[in-house]
Amino acid sequence: RVNLFIIGVGNVGATFIEQLNKQQSILNAKSHLDIQVVGLANSKNMYFNEDGISLSDWKPLLFGSEFPFSREGFMKTMKTFNLRNSVFIDNTDSPEIAALYQDCLNSSISVITPNKVACSSSYENYLNLKSTALKMGSKFLFETNVGAGLPIIGTLNEIVKSGDQINSIEAVLSGSLNFIFNNYDGKDSFGHIVSEAKRLGYTEPDPRIDLSGIDVKRKILILLRESGYHYEIEEVETIPFISEEIMKEEQNFIATLENNEEDFKQLIASAKKQNCRIKYVASFKEGKASTGIQYIPKDHPFYQLEGKDNIVLIHTDRYVDQPLVIKGAGAGAAVTASGIFADVLRFANK
Amino acid sequence: RVNLFIIGVGNVGATFIEQLNKQQSILNAKSHLDIQVVGLANSKNMYFNEDGISLSDWKPLLFGSEFPFSREGFMKTMKTFNLRNSVFIDNTDSPEIAALYQDCLNSSISVITPNKVACSSSYENYLNLKSTALKMGSKFLFETNVGAGLPIIGTLNEIVKSGDQINSIEAVLSGSLNFIFNNYDGKDSFGHIVSEAKRLGYTEPDPRIDLSGIDVKRKILILLRESGYHYEIEEVETIPFISEEIMKEEQNFIATLENNEEDFKQLIASAKKQNCRIKYVASFKEGKASTGIQYIPKDHPFYQLEGKDNIVLIHTDRYVDQPLVIKGAGAGAAVTASGIFADVLRFANK
Repeated sequence: RVNLFIIGVGNVGATFIEQLNKQQSILNAKSHLDIQVVGLANSKNMYFNEDGISLSDWKPLLFGSEFPFSREGFMKTMKTFNLRNSVFIDNTDSPEIAALYQDCLNSSISVITPNKVACSSSYENYLNLKSTALKMGSKFLFETNVGAGLPIIGTLNEIVKSGDQINSIEAVLSGSLNFIFNNYDGKDSFGHIVSEAKRLGYTEPDPRIDLSGIDVKRKILILLRESGYHYEIEEVETIPFISEEIMKEEQNFIATLENNEEDFKQLIASAKKQNCRIKYVASFKEGKASTGIQYIPKDHPFYQLEGKDNIVLIHTDRYVDQPLVIKGAGAGAAVTASGIFADVLRFANK
Repeated sequence: RVNLFIIGVGNVGATFIEQLNKQQSILNAKSHLDIQVVGLANSKNMYFNEDGISLSDWKPLLFGSEFPFSREGFMKTMKTFNLRNSVFIDNTDSPEIAALYQDCLNSSISVITPNKVACSSSYENYLNLKSTALKMGSKFLFETNVGAGLPIIGTLNEIVKSGDQINSIEAVLSGSLNFIFNNYDGKDSFGHIVSEAKRLGYTEPDPRIDLSGIDVKRKILILLRESGYHYEIEEVETIPFISEEIMKEEQNFIATLENNEEDFKQLIASAKKQNCRIKYVASFKEGKASTGIQYIPKDHPFYQLEGKDNIVLIHTDRYVDQPLVIKGAGAGAAVTASGIFADVLRFANK
């Protein structure tokens, strides 16, 4: 039996609960796995049931719960329950929740999360979490930090543990930037496409976060660390494609983009002239990690990357001539929840 | 501590031992994993050491061993040792060795193998092995049955267990057929390319086994079963591209291919006329599984498949618009041994 404590029941969290609700009895019958949710929280409430919360009506139970959420209260209850095979699932993007992992792992409570904060923090903190997990026999799993449900981190782990050496990584890891560059062809203005991406919920509420490439930077950092390399976020070079001046605009950001449309038009014109498409690429080559836009020619595997797809090309000592490639939807609630589910199954397999 | 009993020390087996030899101390230090080889066999000899065989000189130990190999002797020793976390690794392609799995799993000895015989045998046998493993708490792992070290089967398993539904699979799974069709452009004869592939060791000693597509048929069957579908090998339709008459030729096969060069020339000419390349494709769509050659247009992901690369496209309820794609070297000792290593790590994780 596996006991889950879940914080964060937004899009991803709610979808995960729905997926688990459908699979609970099947996993029990087919794989002798009894996976129960014993704790649930959002930013307002929390709700616990040691015997397992009924997943058909978790919403009224949580939203109507008399217990207001507090991090201390949640931690205390997890420890008081003291159940074997306890797992803390963090579906938030909050640094405050990520700050609880160390205490969880130390208390033999495993941690599963799509939240990138911990793994892209200082290398020391990242390493501490990993070694605490190892020492305590708990698990720290975060496959969904990069590429949602795509099996990228697990594959890197296996490659490294089997003694192979990761020599280069080339990847497109941002669904929002992909959408923007796939749709910007010079007809509609760049500013318009960005506001469209924002309207559709493909970017953060502040689209500058996407356009700055910080999210991609965090992702390639995590891939490097999982490949066995010791890097800090500052060591990932970012070549900005929007001037610092424009990025400073908080209120009038879209309008300022519009005012600078000529620059973006030139960018796309020069790409077209070379028969290329523009992609926002994260790369690691000869010890140098960087992120930025690149002109991608027709015969390159990145050229035909549609929609929210992510792609990773990995060259190793054993994948020499052609890379190992993993590609597919890299964002969205269903595939992210799937990836969390896969981590729960990996935990359950131990 | 994990205890391995290895049968088959050819190309793949020897490479696996070499990889393990390099990683043993690292895994011990970094992951608290002590992986020892306690039994080794080829078709002539077998050698055992309960404390772990020194992997730097396994060759003289095995080749100079006084114990002649017998299946009964090997099984008996495994059982007599009665070690916790015992794993039987079958690196052969022998049906006789595959026939031992049931007994292993029943004795709580896990099985890891690139040998496709068991999983492509009758569905009943396949299911028996899986349910024996589940019942006994042993593991039956065969990631390398399809695509060598590529994470295909593990990914299918996670997809299915998380409640997603696999709706279609399209794949190129044969390194040898890929080599043949990549190199046949109508200049050199088809027969010449086949004999060249044979000379380079890319085909079986009898290349008709590759050209018949039986190997691909077995692989797609295994993918279907791992996707949760109940299929027998006869239910996978094969559309032959070489006439039965030619395939009957055992002694003069290459010469007979040469005599029929006109047919193959027509095949390639008609593909070229449509700006297509020929690939040997395994597919599963709307409940129908089939294998055969297909004309692949330029914008299809199979078009630029080089060397020994395999590729799998998976459409599911959650990967709808674009498929989940896994691509990379699908044959070769180093990547196959890597895949076996990954299975050993999966076993060790439990």
